Amino acid sequence: MVYFITGNQNKLKEVQAIISGVEGIEMDLPEIQSLDPQEIITEKLKEAVKEKEGSYFVEDTALYLDCLNGFPGPLIKWFLDRLGNKGIYDLVSNYENHNVVVKAVVGYSNGQDIHFFVGEVKGSIVAPRGESDFGFDPIFLPDGHDKTFAEMSSEEKNKISHRQQALMKFKEFLDKHG
Amino acid sequence: MVYFITGNQNKLKEVQAIISGVEGIEMDLPEIQSLDPQEIITEKLKEAVKEKEGSYFVEDTALYLDCLNGFPGPLIKWFLDRLGNKGIYDLVSNYENHNVVVKAVVGYSNGQDIHFFVGEVKGSIVAPRGESDFGFDPIFLPDGHDKTFAEMSSEEKNKISHRQQALMKFKEFLDKHG
Repeated sequence: MVYFITGNQNKLKEVQAIISGVEGIEMDLPEIQSLDPQEIITEKLKEAVKEKEGSYFVEDTALYLDCLNGFPGPLIKWFLDRLGNKGIYDLVSNYENHNVVVKAVVGYSNGQDIHFFVGEVKGSIVAPRGESDFGFDPIFLPDGHDKTFAEMSSEEKNKISHRQQALMKFKEFLDKHG
Repeated sequence: MVYFITGNQNKLKEVQAIISGVEGIEMDLPEIQSLDPQEIITEKLKEAVKEKEGSYFVEDTALYLDCLNGFPGPLIKWFLDRLGNKGIYDLVSNYENHNVVVKAVVGYSNGQDIHFFVGEVKGSIVAPRGESDFGFDPIFLPDGHDKTFAEMSSEEKNKISHRQQALMKFKEFLDKHG
């Protein structure tokens, strides 16, 4: 059994739609400060394995704004908490460069090694459009598209999203080695 | 013996000038993501005591920008890392409100309870002026003064600084209970 450590039911559903047989588990793990998702994930998986033997994976999302030299990265959660989508859009509007990279990193531990699977989408920050359960989706316009992630259907979004890319790579790995 | 957990030699010197007999110690403790310094400190002290019995204290600094609704708080380290003082000044210049609160929190654990000591200074963000060993000092102009923290002598700064206020409160506590 592979456990997905998360407290986010939306993410759990998204994962279970791709990788069958995954169970969700809530664990109170330290989320360390870093601009590198792999560092944050490594600390979490180490703690998880210490608490209870097993195979676990976690996912972390980062948003790198060109105009802020890559900030906030994995600290996006707090940035969004304080500014909201409108506030982030207003901030970015003050700069010429509205480019952004969103990144999902899945980290998997079988108790011995840690493997990482990365998905990445380039785009730009736009005024909020569409409703969404996922944080910054209303202000993220992927390059080559005219809808924000929040305006797309799940099917449309899943074809290109950072999280889906990372999860598909992870699924391939599990199919081969799991 | 009371140990000050830090990897920062500047902070250690500042502390030893106020509280005699303090020893510095480097410990690799998890620094969790939070906008609340007390949460971050609590996690660190819990881990420190787990690793090795003793009396420890740590200090955390936060910078709350009015224009970003209190962001970045204790995440200032990463904000500064990506933007630098000039970048933070440029960002804040885009807003009308340049007000900021800087806060130092000292957390002390004797192995049983945790006590907190807080120092706070109100001011505004200005174009960088002066040289400094301490992160945002060149862009922090305390209210009622015409020099940034970086332009002040140590003596001038120590009379009003957030860290000194927190440390003086801690020193009083130690004198009474230590």
